[in-house]
Amino acid sequence: MSRALDPRDLAGSGPSEAVRRPGPSTVTRVREVAGGVVRDRRDDLATEEPLEIRIQSGEARRTVAITMRTPGADFELAAGFLHGEGLASAGEIVSIAYCSDDDVAPEARYNTVTVRLRGPLPELPALDRHFVTSSACGVCGSASLDALRDRCLPLPPGDGPLLSPEVLYGLPHRLRRAQGVFGKTGGLHAAGLFTSGGELVALREDVGRHNALDKLVGWALTNGTPSLGEHVLMVSGRASYEIMQKALSAGIPVVCAVSAPSSLAVDLAREFGMTLVGFLREERFNLYSGAERVAV
Amino acid sequence: MSRALDPRDLAGSGPSEAVRRPGPSTVTRVREVAGGVVRDRRDDLATEEPLEIRIQSGEARRTVAITMRTPGADFELAAGFLHGEGLASAGEIVSIAYCSDDDVAPEARYNTVTVRLRGPLPELPALDRHFVTSSACGVCGSASLDALRDRCLPLPPGDGPLLSPEVLYGLPHRLRRAQGVFGKTGGLHAAGLFTSGGELVALREDVGRHNALDKLVGWALTNGTPSLGEHVLMVSGRASYEIMQKALSAGIPVVCAVSAPSSLAVDLAREFGMTLVGFLREERFNLYSGAERVAV
Repeated sequence: MSRALDPRDLAGSGPSEAVRRPGPSTVTRVREVAGGVVRDRRDDLATEEPLEIRIQSGEARRTVAITMRTPGADFELAAGFLHGEGLASAGEIVSIAYCSDDDVAPEARYNTVTVRLRGPLPELPALDRHFVTSSACGVCGSASLDALRDRCLPLPPGDGPLLSPEVLYGLPHRLRRAQGVFGKTGGLHAAGLFTSGGELVALREDVGRHNALDKLVGWALTNGTPSLGEHVLMVSGRASYEIMQKALSAGIPVVCAVSAPSSLAVDLAREFGMTLVGFLREERFNLYSGAERVAV
Repeated sequence: MSRALDPRDLAGSGPSEAVRRPGPSTVTRVREVAGGVVRDRRDDLATEEPLEIRIQSGEARRTVAITMRTPGADFELAAGFLHGEGLASAGEIVSIAYCSDDDVAPEARYNTVTVRLRGPLPELPALDRHFVTSSACGVCGSASLDALRDRCLPLPPGDGPLLSPEVLYGLPHRLRRAQGVFGKTGGLHAAGLFTSGGELVALREDVGRHNALDKLVGWALTNGTPSLGEHVLMVSGRASYEIMQKALSAGIPVVCAVSAPSSLAVDLAREFGMTLVGFLREERFNLYSGAERVAV
């Protein structure tokens, strides 16, 4: 393969122009709280949408991965993924195209990429790292939220803690202070569970941020903690779809992140009645959802 | 389940005392370069090792995930993972134990956790996000490196670029300046490809750091870039096993990270002759491996 592959090179193989193509960022509204001053403003979020990567040879076809990604450079992502996993070198790729299959809903077509290979389909190595729910209609953010609705109920808006900005301001410092292994290595994500008064209940660390949260939820489960419905989760990094989904599953109504949330994290929080706080640092934060749980 | 599950509660089900149990941090040697001054010193790395999570009911058993994690709170991680994925609630868990099976090598036993369930094994949802190579002897870091050797050759120590500290000092700023979507959203990881003189060749952004690197490698492959053997990769976050494995696969000899590397990232770099630079920020960095490619 000696030239760039681009959707425009592959006439007829992509979705019709009528289908909205997701961009790398998504506009939303946010409530900014800084030093007690409240301001509603526009904000840009990094878009997060699932991408299904399929390989095909002749009529044989197989899905090899579903990854949460930011739309853009999707063909490169598929080619790089296959190369990195030892599944196909560049020379074995005949073409890469977005999906135009009838069995995939229009809104999911830019979230499905099929890589056509010269030779037979490779053996797939064992094992998944973790699952991403796939829906029959192909993958897309709203289908992911629909699938989640089958096993998680939205939280009632009036339920859960009422938090003061001062309690929120204090969380990052308390989280960092309790991170024993981070202090030594500088290399770990943390997930901390706090009371509505800002007291640290438990903290777990891991090289993987989803693992840190799984450990924390697992701690609560195996210690017989009856309910996390009055608690606050604080994570050291960003808030992704998976972080929000795990918090919702555990019944935690408030999630705070030191960094930015993704578009799908905000969508999930709004659909399921969760409070999502981002950029919580230095006496300021953004409120993306569930403002009724923060007393400003 | 109303009490904490701990290895000590499960006599006879864990590995024998003779098996070394991995801790959350790992001691290594590092060369620190700060403002032109070089100092060799001790350093602590966050430990990264694979964990295989198995579920069992009666004689039926199935692996549900392999995740790269920091050892510690492994039972909580397994319980939290199963709960978060909707595979098992706490009440359905009978016991959690490290592996003592004869078919698992001693060094992998603390990397395998079996969760015994009350009811029948749940249906597994479709699809993996990405693969982690599993070896016949059970999972462990050194087995992961062994498996990688089957498809990746070590880089010859003399090959690749020779970099000045000044070129390295400049990379974080150049990476950040080129991050268009990060500038808007504050929510994206970046992977940048640079020449040995520090010129940016290409940059890709994504909510997932592995995706950003897959896109970058895919760009090089689909643009017919002949070789990346004289290039430098810079990533915005930490350097994990997966980042190093993808860089090695692409033939990139030098990897620089703004933050910390994990223990397994350093092991991989040393075994495969790669140069690994960590904590590259504000005119300083740590050299973990492949010092011969940096002119200090």
